Amino acid sequence: MNVLYVVGVGPGDPELITVKALRLVQEADVVAGFSTVLEVVRKHVRGQVLPLTYRDQEEKLGQLAEAASRGMRCVLCAWGDPSVSAQELVERVQRVYPWVEIVAGVSSLAVACARVGAALEESLFISLHRREGAERAFQELVYALKQGHRHVFVFPRPYDLMPAQIAQRLMAEEIPPETRVVVLERLGLPEERVLSLSLGALTRCDTLSDLTILFFPKEDEGGYGDGQC
Amino acid sequence: MNVLYVVGVGPGDPELITVKALRLVQEADVVAGFSTVLEVVRKHVRGQVLPLTYRDQEEKLGQLAEAASRGMRCVLCAWGDPSVSAQELVERVQRVYPWVEIVAGVSSLAVACARVGAALEESLFISLHRREGAERAFQELVYALKQGHRHVFVFPRPYDLMPAQIAQRLMAEEIPPETRVVVLERLGLPEERVLSLSLGALTRCDTLSDLTILFFPKEDEGGYGDGQC
Repeated sequence: MNVLYVVGVGPGDPELITVKALRLVQEADVVAGFSTVLEVVRKHVRGQVLPLTYRDQEEKLGQLAEAASRGMRCVLCAWGDPSVSAQELVERVQRVYPWVEIVAGVSSLAVACARVGAALEESLFISLHRREGAERAFQELVYALKQGHRHVFVFPRPYDLMPAQIAQRLMAEEIPPETRVVVLERLGLPEERVLSLSLGALTRCDTLSDLTILFFPKEDEGGYGDGQC
Repeated sequence: MNVLYVVGVGPGDPELITVKALRLVQEADVVAGFSTVLEVVRKHVRGQVLPLTYRDQEEKLGQLAEAASRGMRCVLCAWGDPSVSAQELVERVQRVYPWVEIVAGVSSLAVACARVGAALEESLFISLHRREGAERAFQELVYALKQGHRHVFVFPRPYDLMPAQIAQRLMAEEIPPETRVVVLERLGLPEERVLSLSLGALTRCDTLSDLTILFFPKEDEGGYGDGQC
């Protein structure tokens, strides 16, 4: 049976796409994805573009599955690496089409590690951007910060757990306001910004992009400067 | 000052290199790296090749730093993503040349997640392949397996902590012999092999490649088959 590729296109920097992702997009008859993701690859698409929205994604994925089953070469694009925060999308496509191959990409998490000089094997990655399990993930964050054994990267949730709200909730859980946090905003994009500030100062940052990752170093090495947003 | 690039070349599959890594290698006056890593990019190199070995790496990195300070475009290649298991190499180059930029790549860990269908935000990555801290990392592995909150990926250490020895040591720490483990061997390379077996069976696997990752699913979903090596 025809494989449907779920392809990571990288974190947004058009050069951080892999040669394989580029080739699959170029060869595809149909390229699907959320519209912000498709922007990264649109100039390489020669086939049909099938944009998804949160409301019509089930229907559009059904169309994609049907195209694949008729023998068309189909690619579904995801940000970064499909194994980072795209689990729900991957499961949704597997429900309508089981012959899926995931093509790894450069995640924004890899770029975040590079920017702050953290090793992934000394880090823990917690995503609050999920429909299910976000509360349990938040409790894991509190526990990890109290333990301090690993660096912690956090993906906020755009609608109700943005950085300022996360900071407020962490302080309510007795994480000290002077805790150091690095805000990595729009990584790999032209407007990229890296801010180092205290948890207390983060509660007052309400203008951050929703393309933001928070980084809590396991020890405050003091090398990040001090900032405001 | 001239930036020295530390570039991830991907997990070995020549198509899983990024467009950026490819360009930096093509434009470089000097391309350095361990010889197995250089094989992935050698056909793209137009400048000088500077192979490192474990014994002469300090000396060769000194030569690379000198070339960079004379204005030559220098690239140091690392497997996968430099933030995964290349921390010691990155620190070594930063000691001789501080203007380093890390260019993220596709790690073999991302490929491992894709193969077993794991999400990185539900996983923990533990590397035993390190000069310092390996014993603490092993204890963290034992603790994580007893807790069972996250999938665990483990990088063995080629000379004394290969998969069979890890399995023996885990059983000595009272991890049950029927625990499911997936062996991911030579990921992304032509001889790639994925084996699912019990911890007890793994103690008898003494012919595995040293390019092996172990995966312990957080719940035994039974979807991996049962194998021997």
